[in-house]
Amino acid sequence: MTRSPSERPPERLGEFALIAELFAPLAKDAPGAFGLLDDAATIAPPPGHELVITVDAVVEGVHFLAEDPPDLIAKKALRVNLSDLAAKGATPAGYLLAFIVPETKSMEWMRGFARGLAEDQKEFGIPLLGGDTASTSGPLTLSITAFGFVPRGRMIRRAGAKPGDLVFVSGTIGDAGGGLAILKGAPATPRSAEVVRRYRVPEPRMALGPRLLDAATACLDVSDGLLADLGHIADVSKVHIALDAPRIPRSAALRELWGEGADAILKAATAGDDYELAFTAPPEKREAVFAAGASAGVAVTEIGRVESGEGLELRDEAGHALDIAKAGWTHF
Amino acid sequence: MTRSPSERPPERLGEFALIAELFAPLAKDAPGAFGLLDDAATIAPPPGHELVITVDAVVEGVHFLAEDPPDLIAKKALRVNLSDLAAKGATPAGYLLAFIVPETKSMEWMRGFARGLAEDQKEFGIPLLGGDTASTSGPLTLSITAFGFVPRGRMIRRAGAKPGDLVFVSGTIGDAGGGLAILKGAPATPRSAEVVRRYRVPEPRMALGPRLLDAATACLDVSDGLLADLGHIADVSKVHIALDAPRIPRSAALRELWGEGADAILKAATAGDDYELAFTAPPEKREAVFAAGASAGVAVTEIGRVESGEGLELRDEAGHALDIAKAGWTHF
Repeated sequence: MTRSPSERPPERLGEFALIAELFAPLAKDAPGAFGLLDDAATIAPPPGHELVITVDAVVEGVHFLAEDPPDLIAKKALRVNLSDLAAKGATPAGYLLAFIVPETKSMEWMRGFARGLAEDQKEFGIPLLGGDTASTSGPLTLSITAFGFVPRGRMIRRAGAKPGDLVFVSGTIGDAGGGLAILKGAPATPRSAEVVRRYRVPEPRMALGPRLLDAATACLDVSDGLLADLGHIADVSKVHIALDAPRIPRSAALRELWGEGADAILKAATAGDDYELAFTAPPEKREAVFAAGASAGVAVTEIGRVESGEGLELRDEAGHALDIAKAGWTHF
Repeated sequence: MTRSPSERPPERLGEFALIAELFAPLAKDAPGAFGLLDDAATIAPPPGHELVITVDAVVEGVHFLAEDPPDLIAKKALRVNLSDLAAKGATPAGYLLAFIVPETKSMEWMRGFARGLAEDQKEFGIPLLGGDTASTSGPLTLSITAFGFVPRGRMIRRAGAKPGDLVFVSGTIGDAGGGLAILKGAPATPRSAEVVRRYRVPEPRMALGPRLLDAATACLDVSDGLLADLGHIADVSKVHIALDAPRIPRSAALRELWGEGADAILKAATAGDDYELAFTAPPEKREAVFAAGASAGVAVTEIGRVESGEGLELRDEAGHALDIAKAGWTHF
């Protein structure tokens, strides 16, 4: 782990202590991390495998709220990256952290942050391999690079959906958007804590992703919103995707918050930050997909199909296309 | 390449255009980048090799100045990472960019930034593999993760210096610190543009690093300052390092700016951002080290030796230890 240059003592003393106290324990089980005492780390995939690499930055005030608890901020920053690995069918192998922090953060805050990372490292079996610390005059910024392994050439792409495929999604959709609405002042409901938690601490579908390697033709994690993200698959796969609105899975807590009907479904399907896996698979793999979900312990729902053409549509119970542009969704 | 979530349209339109126009061309030669159309990239080391991975974040106002030209900011952000690869003996393979940008940056600025990356990708033979874009209310922040290849188990560590080894450094020391002083208002000299350029656009020693794989016992790049960085090697290698002040190589431009004598040498040896390679090698490798420098086209100077003990000292012509604590250098 390196500290960024152009910072003179005595600040360095603090940064060395920070790395030794907070971050080195997170790297102790990774031989390639060299105890965070070097400029770089090493990693190699097992025979027949390659590395999947992804980076996601989260910024205070954009991706999380300043008053969010530090351990949950740490977990969210790590989990959005883990979720990308899951969507590609990869098994997590390690991560690098660029920790760009304003001087206003206390040691207590930083200890809470490191505790969150430690808990998630244990839960998901991923070690810290290295990183960088830097100071900023702006908001706390966390840039995490995550590494996973897949059999060589087998990463599940966005671009593989084929006409005739079915469309699936894991878990429930819209909860994180409901949680954000509550945090921004929407009236609480008896179960609103459930959706707030989904916003603050997404559940990356690590057990599901690798189980889709033999079934899914395209996959991504839902971060921009279900419609926008499946629109990405339609774009890069050069296909049309037709979704059945009533089949989009929504939690009881979200139904309590946002109600029923086409508008409520549209709201859920255009909310972001769910980190569920949305994917396509040919009809002959339908049972394998449901078996993968059962084995991974997560619900998987069939919500539509892939057709020739382009773009995305959302059909109501009667098969009529809903006006998704009205819901603020743009086909880009 | 992904855009970070929690950003709603119409900003997305701009971000997609940004990725398509500015960044996708930088990834066109890397098959594992999938045209920046996926959530992740893939990379695998050649047989018998492993990946060296490193991340460095640079922040406006901390690591570069807001008024620095955008192409030079891009180059510095990339080069500080390339320099870490060089110091580990690695050959560059690709990089990920987290581009965290305030809304005040113009398209013209961003085009300049991308042009700087394109020029350096060509110069150093390294493609963009993927990344993330995010907005911030704070300063421009660039977090780059760089990937290189080394023969498996052969990364040059910080921890390998042995008593009896000699100490070497590439190029000249202190120029970047002199350049920063000029940019902060020190009186210009006839050759001060040379040192300003060394601050703004460091020269990573890519040709030298891999040529040291068979000779160097420890290596790092000089970012905190020569004394501080060799102090890191002394610490983690558990040895004492004795340097001869008069042998520390300084450029004619820096001598013109800061003069001669022990104080001027101390100033150069405690300035940062040089990105030269400082390394140790046994005496029987001395000729191999100089041959590596000649082959790489960079001067290499022998500046001291490794002894038993701990810490670092800087001796004057008469062999007396200089008071390096006085120069603001702290042994941490």
